Order: sequence, then C-alpha cells, then structure tokens
Amino acid sequence: MTPRILITNDDGVASSGLRAAYEAVRGLGDICIVAPATQQSAVGRSMTLFEPLRIARQPLDDAVAYSVNGTPTDSVVMGMFVVMEKKPDLVISGINIGENLSAEAVTTSGTIGAALEAANQGVPAIAVSMRVEDEGDKFYETARARNYAAARNVIRRLAGCVLEGRLPAGVDVLNVNVPCSATVETPIALTRLARRMYDTHVHHRQDPRGRSYYWVDGTVVEDAPQDTDLHVVTRLGHISVTPLTLDMTAPIDRAGMDALLLRAFGSR
Amino acid sequence: MTPRILITNDDGVASSGLRAAYEAVRGLGDICIVAPATQQSAVGRSMTLFEPLRIARQPLDDAVAYSVNGTPTDSVVMGMFVVMEKKPDLVISGINIGENLSAEAVTTSGTIGAALEAANQGVPAIAVSMRVEDEGDKFYETARARNYAAARNVIRRLAGCVLEGRLPAGVDVLNVNVPCSATVETPIALTRLARRMYDTHVHHRQDPRGRSYYWVDGTVVEDAPQDTDLHVVTRLGHISVTPLTLDMTAPIDRAGMDALLLRAFGSR
Repeated sequence: MTPRILITNDDGVASSGLRAAYEAVRGLGDICIVAPATQQSAVGRSMTLFEPLRIARQPLDDAVAYSVNGTPTDSVVMGMFVVMEKKPDLVISGINIGENLSAEAVTTSGTIGAALEAANQGVPAIAVSMRVEDEGDKFYETARARNYAAARNVIRRLAGCVLEGRLPAGVDVLNVNVPCSATVETPIALTRLARRMYDTHVHHRQDPRGRSYYWVDGTVVEDAPQDTDLHVVTRLGHISVTPLTLDMTAPIDRAGMDALLLRAFGSR
Repeated sequence: MTPRILITNDDGVASSGLRAAYEAVRGLGDICIVAPATQQSAVGRSMTLFEPLRIARQPLDDAVAYSVNGTPTDSVVMGMFVVMEKKPDLVISGINIGENLSAEAVTTSGTIGAALEAANQGVPAIAVSMRVEDEGDKFYETARARNYAAARNVIRRLAGCVLEGRLPAGVDVLNVNVPCSATVETPIALTRLARRMYDTHVHHRQDPRGRSYYWVDGTVVEDAPQDTDLHVVTRLGHISVTPLTLDMTAPIDRAGMDALLLRAFGSR
C-alpha cells in the first residue's frame, strides 16, 4: 500500500517552508497539502468551534494545496476528514520559520499544535522548525533565499523510518529543530525539552492619543541544561530531535498528591 | 506576608464563573482579576505577538477587574507584569463553563492554557471547569442560575493548601473538573488524563449561494479507563483533580529512540 502523508504548517499556504516540506517527502507516498490560508503563529493547538470553516484549492508547484480559513489544527482536521477522507499514515508540520524549543513552545506553537492534533487522531507526526536570525523587516526579503537542504534531509529520513516502523512506544510526536546554518553533516541530537525559552517582559508604550498599549516580549534563557533542545540548537548549532507525549499527567509520587487532597478535603 | 492571587478565565471578564472564582478565594489574600475582554474558547495557550495589547478597568462586585483584548495567556502575562508588577503566589483559572477533560483539553482549552502560562512563569496554578449539559441557545439564559457552590468549595480548599505548601514536586498545574450536579458532599478523585474525549467528525453544509462550509464536531469517547478524569466526571459524576506537568518530553525507553535515529541517520 502506498503510504499517505498529510503536510501542514502554521505560516500559511504561501510559505516557502511548506513547499520545502513537500519537496522533502515527494516520492515517499501520496501527499496531501492542507494549510492555513494566512499566517497563524503562536496559536498553539487552538481550534475554530464557533465559525464555519471553508476550504479552497490552489496549485503548489506540481501539487495541489488546500487552504483553510482557520488554525493549523483546523487544517489537520479538514485534511483528514474532508480532503483525504481517511486518516493518513504520517503528518508533517512545517517547515516553520523560527525555532520551536522548550516546553513553552509545545503549547504555544501552531506548528507543534498541528502535530499534536495529528497525534490526537492517532497519526504519527513530525513537527519541523528552522531557527533563523531575527530579521525584523527583512524577514520577507530573505524568505525566498533560505537554505532548507539540511531540514529537508532530516524530514525525508525521519519520515521514511516512521512510515516503515511507526514511532517508538509512548512517543506521539517528534519535534525537530534545525539551525539555519545546518548542513547534511550537522550532528543530530536526541534531546529533552528545556523548561522554558524566554524570560518574559512587557513593553509599555503610548499611542499618539496618549493611550497605553503593550507588547509582550522576552529574552532567551541562557542556562539550559546540556541535554535540552534549547542548549543543543542555540549553543551547539546542532539539530535537535525531541520525542513528545500527549499525556501531560504529572508523573507524581502519588503520596504527595494524596497528602495534598487529604489536607484539602479530609478523608474522601 | 499576605498571599497574592491572580484570577483569570477564558470565558471573558463578564462570565459568572469568573465571579464565582473570586468569591471562592475572597479573604485568602490580595486578589487581582485580569481576564480576556471577550470569550476565548478553544484558544489553548495561544499568545498575541503581532498586535499590541490594551487593558481596561471595570468594577466586579466589590473588586476591580481588568480586561485584556487578547487570550487567557495574554491576560496572565498582563496581570503579572503590568497590573500586579510582580508574580503572584497562585493563579486560579476559571470557573470555566464546560468541562476540560482528557489530554485533548490540555492543549486546546484556554482555561488550562492560562494555567500553563502561570506554571511557565513559575507560579502554581489551578484550572477549574464545570461540566454542564449541552444547552444550545439556552446557554446564556441559564448562566446566571448556575450553582457554583461545590466548585467554589473545591477552589477555596485547594487554594488554601497550595498557598500553605505549594504543589507536590513535579506538579505544575491542578486541573479540576466539577459536574454541575455536584454538592459539597460529592466525592473527589485523583485522576490521570484520558487519552482523548472526542471522536472527531466534520459536518458539510452549503450556504445559500451553494458554497460549502464545514463545522468541526465530535462525539464523546465512551470507554475511558476507570482512573481517568473522563470516566470519573462523566460516568461517576464525581469531582476530578488531575496533576499536570509542563514537560511533554515522552518518557521513553531511550533504546527505541536511539534505534530510530540510527536507522534514519546512521551513526551520528
């Protein structure tokens, strides 16, 4: 049976990273591309419940892409249940422009959000992000010139292995981060999530009418442990592969939680 | 030192559930209420990065509430860094109208998203949701008549314990679900997350101009294991307390992942 692969992202259907993900897996199976119509950064795994969704077809190189007026998670759902009419064997989300590192990224990233939705549907998923220098207004000028070769190589190889043998037990998603300077020679490290990537701060400004507004911002945490995704990518410049689980139940010492509930409620 | 408590939600600053959360902890410390200006369901932990945020003051019973033109996560950040100017000792998110059960809810719920953001900032958090019957258009008529007594009792008792002794090691958030029929006598169970709550399906309709549109929907999974939040709340009608971690690194047999990477990339 020919494997079936769904590709999505959070940067929108026009992103060069989406095209690169398609090029990475071309020939590995029947490929379906379904992505948000517009950029959806930092939407996490949010879903559209109170508005109807629409879908449109458009060419993408030698393929057809479908755009959805919603989030990355909406795109995965529409891809599986409307376009493909059957769950695929693998979902690729990316290539995102910008890294998705640390526990912070897992719940805020639209790229990872789409992969979590795939996993929720029982489909193995790979989220792929490329760390780029902060480019400010030059972001769109440089987008076409990006070198996706290393990221494409990682996607193709991981996709091939996952299609052959699925993911190891307990792993729902592979979260892959590739520095933009990486080549096919760059080392690949198995990592865990850093606790967080940013120390948050908020900028206060005033508009021309004297009213306050605020920008949320952050500075990168400097001291992540050596086995974390954050250290491996930002310090070593290596490629990071982190296995993720959907199950956020804390792996507790049961006695500690029982004691807390006993203090709170007495014997139950 | 008087404890400092930040209250937020995802139903918006006008929700009766937000008022109930405030009533639950009134007197336990200095309380600050910061919530989205409008309902933000299913936004997960999404953040506003590309639009400025604004904040407004309004009375809420005998307190002042601040509304933010953004997500629950934005509200937590603005509450900590702008309104309180210092991190609080505890964040309460809720009371949400509608349950937040299973791994699916953790990454899609705005109520839990706000609690995850608090945890990301190093602050213990309690997310509280109330399961209600599906009310359709009657939702807003019945909202004022809700009985929050059991949920208020759980919040006050858990908040008191967490403020006294923090959360057990490895626990970042308590996710609490209360059936709307619960009383102060209803049993309270320590649970783990069910894998998922819904089997997804998508409805296809056509608008009056003959164009397709879609609603994402789902039917509740019937066979969740007995120690899960889903079973305890929907089958037994008990109150569920689930400890959550921010760290979604899969607790893997390292050999399985190493073997996958070796197959994919050869020796690294």
